[in-house]
Amino acid sequence: MNRAQLFEQIKKKESCLCVGLDTDLLKIPKHLQHTEDPIFEFNKQIIDATHPYCVAYKPNIAFYEALGPTGWVSLQKTLAYIPKDIFTIADAKRGDIGNTSALYARAFFEQMNFDSITVAPYMGEDSVKPFLMRDKWVILLAHTSNSGSNDFQVMEVTIGKRRLYEEVILKSQQWATPDQLMFVVGATHPEKIASIRALAPDHFFLVPGIGAQGGDLEKVMQHGMNDSCGLLINSARAIIYASDGKDFAKRAGEEALKVQQEMSEYLTKYS
Amino acid sequence: MNRAQLFEQIKKKESCLCVGLDTDLLKIPKHLQHTEDPIFEFNKQIIDATHPYCVAYKPNIAFYEALGPTGWVSLQKTLAYIPKDIFTIADAKRGDIGNTSALYARAFFEQMNFDSITVAPYMGEDSVKPFLMRDKWVILLAHTSNSGSNDFQVMEVTIGKRRLYEEVILKSQQWATPDQLMFVVGATHPEKIASIRALAPDHFFLVPGIGAQGGDLEKVMQHGMNDSCGLLINSARAIIYASDGKDFAKRAGEEALKVQQEMSEYLTKYS
Repeated sequence: MNRAQLFEQIKKKESCLCVGLDTDLLKIPKHLQHTEDPIFEFNKQIIDATHPYCVAYKPNIAFYEALGPTGWVSLQKTLAYIPKDIFTIADAKRGDIGNTSALYARAFFEQMNFDSITVAPYMGEDSVKPFLMRDKWVILLAHTSNSGSNDFQVMEVTIGKRRLYEEVILKSQQWATPDQLMFVVGATHPEKIASIRALAPDHFFLVPGIGAQGGDLEKVMQHGMNDSCGLLINSARAIIYASDGKDFAKRAGEEALKVQQEMSEYLTKYS
Repeated sequence: MNRAQLFEQIKKKESCLCVGLDTDLLKIPKHLQHTEDPIFEFNKQIIDATHPYCVAYKPNIAFYEALGPTGWVSLQKTLAYIPKDIFTIADAKRGDIGNTSALYARAFFEQMNFDSITVAPYMGEDSVKPFLMRDKWVILLAHTSNSGSNDFQVMEVTIGKRRLYEEVILKSQQWATPDQLMFVVGATHPEKIASIRALAPDHFFLVPGIGAQGGDLEKVMQHGMNDSCGLLINSARAIIYASDGKDFAKRAGEEALKVQQEMSEYLTKYS
């Protein structure tokens, strides 16, 4: 899916919601535990209930990897089940020397057919480039939503007196255009979104941290949008675990609808 | 395996060699391609031929992940086949927000029983800590062996005028002792090994970059060793792909022996 197509979906659904499929065997409703593939069964019902209100799904790969080979099967089935007009993100945070990154690219873009993958920048250009060799997207970690983002990402570097995450955003723009590169920008730092937008005016940002992590949706949209919306805002736990009973999918759909309605309002108000 | 036990193995075998199991279906000998599990069959014969000369095996997880669920099965079988007195490293370069890192830890330390995992530092403390909750090791990326290590890792930060990788080494020592934490320090920067050793006198370093990547074994050992050797030096391609014929395992054993003999000489000369 290219940038124009993604923006089309956002306009059509009046939503920039990404639903995080952080599917944990320990948290899904008991009545699913005895189905043949509880992880896929849960995801399938979540997708059925939420797809009218979101433009992206983001399986968090750790949750599948923790289950061994069967987790990978559930992930493949989930990916195949997602409607084709919805953007897919492998939240994998990979990154390694060139020939190894090429194999991770093979895993997520060939073995599976994700539209995009999240990538860690620490190892630099040759660790990122192999993910750009196809007609696919890299979503590079810039300023993440967790507390540890204060450890290295915000360090001021002597060249230009910029923060490390700002250097990541600037330097990586030499590697790919806004048609192949997005950035992870946490909603838990809403005061910084405007300055980050200034560094990367045309790029999409994947924004985790609203919902359970406490980020402010309105501020993020007010200060983060560009001409093509430019935001995919993720919510996982607050939607997919809205209920742990038999009504989990219905409740997830209701929560997703609520977020979509807020987004619709801000899309009009701030565009 | 703890630090003392690892040093015991190094003394016993007169070797600090780690063999990288970067096993690629496209590179393994043709006569293995039609066995039931070519990846495991290759690894098994490589392990049989090289285990007298090495103290660690490091499967590069990307190579297995690129094969989908069957790759994970081959990886599990490989790990189970490695003799118990040999240290095992999941070269996965993971790192995510706390609750997600906890799941990666579950994948590599419970689903599989690796002794250690390589972790990327960019997301900071809460992305690393979940890997330290068991009696296992974190091997944190510091100064990697690839060309992209020049993009962010060597940036000078204003606090203390240190390089970013130096900050990673210093700050992370607040999170774990040398009994749970190692650092990745590439052999392709041999001139820096002495100064890195000064920052972390007691920690083990995992050193990639000799062999195919061109690092200098003698310089690394001369400037990098500490009282407990403190080095695990990785070689992958130069050993496991020494031949692509039916003699591949025998040739791998010969190459591993050659490296072990050099190591034995330097262990005496520089300790």
